[in-house]
Amino acid sequence: MPDIIDGRIAAAIYEKVRREKPLVHHLTNFVTMGDCAAVTVSAGALPVMAQAEEEVEEMVSAARAAVINTGTLSPSRVRAMGRMGVTAREKGIPVVFDPVGAGATRYRTGEILALLRKIRPSIIKGNKAEIGFLGGLHGIKIRGIEALNIDVDPLEAAQRLLDFLDYEAVVVITGPVDVVYDFRRIARVFNGNALLPLVVGSGCMAASVIAAFAAVEEDFFTAAATALATLGVAAELAAESKDNLLLGPAAFKIRWLDTLFFLTAEQLVKSARIKVDEVTQG
Amino acid sequence: MPDIIDGRIAAAIYEKVRREKPLVHHLTNFVTMGDCAAVTVSAGALPVMAQAEEEVEEMVSAARAAVINTGTLSPSRVRAMGRMGVTAREKGIPVVFDPVGAGATRYRTGEILALLRKIRPSIIKGNKAEIGFLGGLHGIKIRGIEALNIDVDPLEAAQRLLDFLDYEAVVVITGPVDVVYDFRRIARVFNGNALLPLVVGSGCMAASVIAAFAAVEEDFFTAAATALATLGVAAELAAESKDNLLLGPAAFKIRWLDTLFFLTAEQLVKSARIKVDEVTQG
Amino acid sequence: MPDIIDGRIAAAIYEKVRREKPLVHHLTNFVTMGDCAAVTVSAGALPVMAQAEEEVEEMVSAARAAVINTGTLSPSRVRAMGRMGVTAREKGIPVVFDPVGAGATRYRTGEILALLRKIRPSIIKGNKAEIGFLGGLHGIKIRGIEALNIDVDPLEAAQRLLDFLDYEAVVVITGPVDVVYDFRRIARVFNGNALLPLVVGSGCMAASVIAAFAAVEEDFFTAAATALATLGVAAELAAESKDNLLLGPAAFKIRWLDTLFFLTAEQLVKSARIKVDEVTQG
Repeated sequence: MPDIIDGRIAAAIYEKVRREKPLVHHLTNFVTMGDCAAVTVSAGALPVMAQAEEEVEEMVSAARAAVINTGTLSPSRVRAMGRMGVTAREKGIPVVFDPVGAGATRYRTGEILALLRKIRPSIIKGNKAEIGFLGGLHGIKIRGIEALNIDVDPLEAAQRLLDFLDYEAVVVITGPVDVVYDFRRIARVFNGNALLPLVVGSGCMAASVIAAFAAVEEDFFTAAATALATLGVAAELAAESKDNLLLGPAAFKIRWLDTLFFLTAEQLVKSARIKVDEVTQG
Repeated sequence: MPDIIDGRIAAAIYEKVRREKPLVHHLTNFVTMGDCAAVTVSAGALPVMAQAEEEVEEMVSAARAAVINTGTLSPSRVRAMGRMGVTAREKGIPVVFDPVGAGATRYRTGEILALLRKIRPSIIKGNKAEIGFLGGLHGIKIRGIEALNIDVDPLEAAQRLLDFLDYEAVVVITGPVDVVYDFRRIARVFNGNALLPLVVGSGCMAASVIAAFAAVEEDFFTAAATALATLGVAAELAAESKDNLLLGPAAFKIRWLDTLFFLTAEQLVKSARIKVDEVTQG
Repeated sequence: MPDIIDGRIAAAIYEKVRREKPLVHHLTNFVTMGDCAAVTVSAGALPVMAQAEEEVEEMVSAARAAVINTGTLSPSRVRAMGRMGVTAREKGIPVVFDPVGAGATRYRTGEILALLRKIRPSIIKGNKAEIGFLGGLHGIKIRGIEALNIDVDPLEAAQRLLDFLDYEAVVVITGPVDVVYDFRRIARVFNGNALLPLVVGSGCMAASVIAAFAAVEEDFFTAAATALATLGVAAELAAESKDNLLLGPAAFKIRWLDTLFFLTAEQLVKSARIKVDEVTQG
């Protein structure tokens, strides 16, 4: 029997985040940095965004989880990411690694692969093109930071990446159905809303909340699946606009953040839809 | 007879943007980077914000249009802008160049002029003080990045800049009435709303949408005029708040983005107000 | 008798900001840069965010107030802050210095102390942990950029910092009750709302508005107290949602900005709550 991960477990972890307010150190891109800070606060945790090589090791040592996001990469940021990530690993602080733009340029891809090998992050989260590309799947085309509409099986992409990396990690592939994989189990999270992928930074923000959950839940597989379900339930409820507010991506982002902020255990228990299956290695 | 550019043409180009989802590579300032990404998505295109010298050439080569914005300039960004802009020109990818802060400091002005000469961007978009200053008009005072209330004729400012640059480009001057000029024609766009200039980044965001339109419409003069009309119609409709929402610059920005997202061809056909005239060279 | 600073004085200064539209030059962190620009516009002033060493001296010379914020610090930013701050002091332009993250890492703390000694800013604004830490109070623990719930008397923290710095400055400590101190007087500002500290960047944004007020009011003690009351009254009115809008930190931020934008002298006169006392040196 596979583990059961449901809304009650999500609610218990979310409650723990809100009670313990873990510090989540981000080294993330300039585009959505403010959004990542906002979602971390809305989820009840504390964000910090220090990025200088000179201080990331000390800052991450004071944190309970870390996010490394490769958007708007640069050589100095790569160096800071390496120092921050290695320190986090040495101290047992979970790192959520978001390989934004993997496959988009040779520079980005090369630095991402080097960082993955160096940091060995606990959780790697991307879309299926990024994860598939990093795992060596053929025929993947990436345009900017967007996955083209490619026919990649998320489980295969996650498996290929873990085989390639050859250490124990949790791989998260976001999409209409989010997938979480850890060699042994696959969780599928069915919550969400069609506006979510149109919110710039929604993927980056998911990494922040996964990190906040991983800060208080040592089974990172469970932490990732419940974080995604929590964000997805908030998105579903945010879209149920009772007033007349015009709800495009911009207003939806605001409401998503605030729905997450007010989300109750009851709502999570009622609406979280997570399915866990055991995976037989091929 | 001058060309007629109207709401039907705007709607046709906008439809093409939404269908083809062109990638628009931005190298823009840190202040409004997130807003530029958001408006690009709301307009149906795909943003990417890679900024490292190491990858901008490859990234822009995969894009169909580019935005270069000189806010929060720095030497490394200037170098990246040069490489990105030259690559774009060599590959025939339109560049919208936004000389934010031209005239504000000697450093900024010098780098902007050097970049203009090096890149020879397809479209140059600024306010009348920036464009007038770059074209050598006397008596222009710039305070920070804001045009002081100067008595500059937009057409003269545009003409002076094109005479100075001496290559074929489209010049856009934003203001209560937006002006687009290409040596041969002047378009005046009468759409907009008084809250728009109070939205931080509305000018930067206009560059993003002009670039998205220029990605699918090879007559950049038409692309710029219709993009501005589209944004202006969205602003007019956004201001017609049917609910009780307090609509200052912050809420208006959200609603403007979402109105743009939902904007229909019918609304554009009904409300776009663009006037094109031939220009006799003086 | 201590000075009386009330809503009428706040309204008079705010009116002056709106009329004179002072340019406020920011060198602030990447996380909330856009929010600082937005609040500056909503308060009726003009923001500029130039950050390159090559231009900050010239840019700040054109400004009437400056904000230096040490979030997302880096060596190049420290250098630019030093040049900007020294130039401002030499030209008599007030600097609001926000020592974000003081105490969080040795690097951050060291650079902040060096900048304070070098710049000698007119106004230093932080939370009580940051100010207490910089003043040498014992037993202060800082986690990321958040003050832990420490038992520090704000007045003592402010006094210790001024004693340490040994020059005339105004110290602002934000909190449920904001405190302003200048060796001679202490002002307590009772306006505000519980959602405000959950708005990422609300502290940074307060610095922007204090700077805008200090640009037009040469008694910086009065400028700081009235700016905080103005922001606090806007927060109180923003929270009085008459519609059904879900008001978590994200929507509240938008409404706070817009309430500030529309704030009237009558509202300030009616609701500002500032108490000034003379301080006997211990």
